[in-house]
Order: sequence, then C-alpha cells, then structure tokens
Amino acid sequence: MMKPQNKTPTNNERLAEVYRTAAQIILRKGYDATSVNDIANALGMTKAGLYHYISGKKELLFDIMTFGLDELNDECVAPAHSIADPAERLHFIITKHAQLVTRGQGAITILVDEITALTPAQQRKITARKRDYFDKLRGTLDQLKAEGKLQDVDTTTAAFSILGMVNWLSRWFRPDGAMTPDQIGEEIAKIVLHGLIRPDERGVRHGLKIVKS
Amino acid sequence: MMKPQNKTPTNNERLAEVYRTAAQIILRKGYDATSVNDIANALGMTKAGLYHYISGKKELLFDIMTFGLDELNDECVAPAHSIADPAERLHFIITKHAQLVTRGQGAITILVDEITALTPAQQRKITARKRDYFDKLRGTLDQLKAEGKLQDVDTTTAAFSILGMVNWLSRWFRPDGAMTPDQIGEEIAKIVLHGLIRPDERGVRHGLKIVKS
Repeated sequence: MMKPQNKTPTNNERLAEVYRTAAQIILRKGYDATSVNDIANALGMTKAGLYHYISGKKELLFDIMTFGLDELNDECVAPAHSIADPAERLHFIITKHAQLVTRGQGAITILVDEITALTPAQQRKITARKRDYFDKLRGTLDQLKAEGKLQDVDTTTAAFSILGMVNWLSRWFRPDGAMTPDQIGEEIAKIVLHGLIRPDERGVRHGLKIVKS
Repeated sequence: MMKPQNKTPTNNERLAEVYRTAAQIILRKGYDATSVNDIANALGMTKAGLYHYISGKKELLFDIMTFGLDELNDECVAPAHSIADPAERLHFIITKHAQLVTRGQGAITILVDEITALTPAQQRKITARKRDYFDKLRGTLDQLKAEGKLQDVDTTTAAFSILGMVNWLSRWFRPDGAMTPDQIGEEIAKIVLHGLIRPDERGVRHGLKIVKS
C-alpha cells in the first residue's frame, strides 16, 4: 500500500494551520506584541500570502475564536445531535471535545476564554455560541435525569464541571506525553461518568446502598 | 446574642481585600492599563495608604499569585495533611479549594494562570508551588489506588481534571446565583467522587458487573 506523498493541503487545512499557529504566537507573545509578520514568518508565508487567509490583525482574535467554535460545532455538537441515547451522546461530546482541545497545543481553547479583548458586538456573538453549546450539554444531562439515569447532582454544576475538565486539558496536555488525545478523552469520560471512587467503597456515608448477592 | 458591630478588619483581612480588589481590576482592565491609583480608588484608600500593603505595581502580579497560593496552602493543603483517610482527604481538598476559588469572584484563580506575565524567576517559584499542590492531590489519588478504592483511572488525568473542574468555577460562579459556594463545592465533590451516571445504569458496556441479590 502506498502512502500519500506530497499531499497538497486543502484550503481548509491551511486555514486551520494559520489559525492554530496565530493562536500559539498570540498566547506566547500577547496580542499587542504580535504582528502579522510574526505569524507569516512562523507559517513560512509572505505577508501577502497570509492576507489570503486573514482579513487583518484587528479581526484576528474574533476570527480565531469563530474558527474554534465552528470546529466544535462541526465535529462535536452537530454529530452529537443524531445520537439518540443521552449517555452515549454525553460520552461522544466529552471525548470529541477533548480531542479538539488538544489540537495546536490548546491555544485556541485558551484564547476563546479571552473574551474581554473583543469588541462588545463580537463578545455577544462568541458568548451566545458558547451559551448554545453549554445549553446542549446541560440538556443532555437533563434528559439523563428525566430518564432516571443520573446521580442526584445539579446539572448546571455538572455541565460547567465537564467544560472545566475538558478545557483545562489545553493547559496540561503535551503531544509528547505518555497518552494520546484519544486515551485522555476516554479517561476524562470515564472519570466524569463513573466517578473516582469504586462503588463498593462508597459506603453508607455517601447514601448509596451496596447490595451483595 | 449580639452581632459584632464596626469590627475593625485585621491587617490580614485588609491585605486580602487589597489583593482581591487588585486582581479584579487587573482582570477587567488588563495589567498594563491598571494603575496603582485605580486600585487605591476602588479600595477607598490613598495611594500612600495602599503602599502600606503593596510594594509597587511591578511586584503586584507575583504578590497576588503568592497570596492566592498562601491561602490555598493555609486553608486547604496544610489542614488536608492531617486527614489520614485518603477519600476523606480528597473530599476536603475539593470542597475547600472550591470555596477559595469563589472568593473575590475568582479573579485570583484566573490570574494565577497568567504566568507568562511574570519574570522567569517568579515563574519558577509559582510553577514549583502549583506543582507541589498537584503532587499532593495526585498522591492522595495514588494512595486510594494502592488501597484498591479507586476506579481504574489514570491518576494524572484525574488530578488535572479535578483542578480543571475547581478552577473553572472562577469563570462561572456568581455570588447572587442559586447556590452557595459550600453547596457548589459539595456538588463538585459528588460528581468527581461518584460520577454522573447511576451505577445501576452503567451496564455491561462500561465493564462494570452489576450484582443483584
């Protein structure tokens, strides 16, 4: 079997590379200190070539955040919609979002949090999209609760806790670490779905009755 | 019973207020745009009065982070050390850390993450202290694992996931919300210790055998 050689990246792949590289440079140097030239140099492009992909530094932060939220929608939220079973859907959302966060060393995820650097109109757009994702995540938990499958937990706290675990991955994941993004995503799903303490060790104190045959 | 009236804040309480207010202003305006005057005004102090508590803007970020990590040590890490049972210790660490994060609208927690704004020497100090906390948290999980009380999870991923859940609280907790810091801390502990899905709903797919009497 032949490996594909000299594969030409599609326009979308190149755009993704531009945004991920720009995000990494902005995180390292700060937005003010980053020039369009810095980004072009890091990508091995001319400034004119880079302007084929971006509309300017002024819009760059918003464009990077929009790109990150588009990716989240296309690869996680939209496909999750077609999974009828809420437990399966929750597992899919957690593992898929975790994979996305590890791309480009998590720089886009960290930047999406830097919303105060945007104009008020841009802030409203990004906040509305984040809110929409949050509502879908919590909706899945509410469905599990309605079906009697959820532990006795507050679904708002649970949804934010899932976001926290997954988003935090951007701060500690190392591509050269012992675990792949897929493995870490599965671990995070396991922790949030099943908890850390073995059920037979939870005892009476936590209000769970252990039935032994 | 009389309520204490006109209680004079101790020097420590005043210092805590200085750091929390400074952190909130820096988060809102950005470090560069924040002046010592802004902080003094927000506290209703003179600039000279404020200099009784801080050594200057240059050291302020590092001092705020150090204050936050001191608080974490004094109220969470050090008392946790004397709790012999690792499950109880884990519960204590999670709930206590969650309470700390909600103070001052989470500004200090968010700033402690802004480590690149520090000098290299300051970065090393803060990183070493964060690492020490992480090691103690993971050590508690390793102890649970050694005692056969932990689910089959990677303790590094689990420790970072706990930090993510707790630190994320700084971004979504609202003092005027429906739940108190204590209630949210208990919810987070419940989620991470016991998981979201009811044990009797986990089924064969997740590799847990359900024993019915």
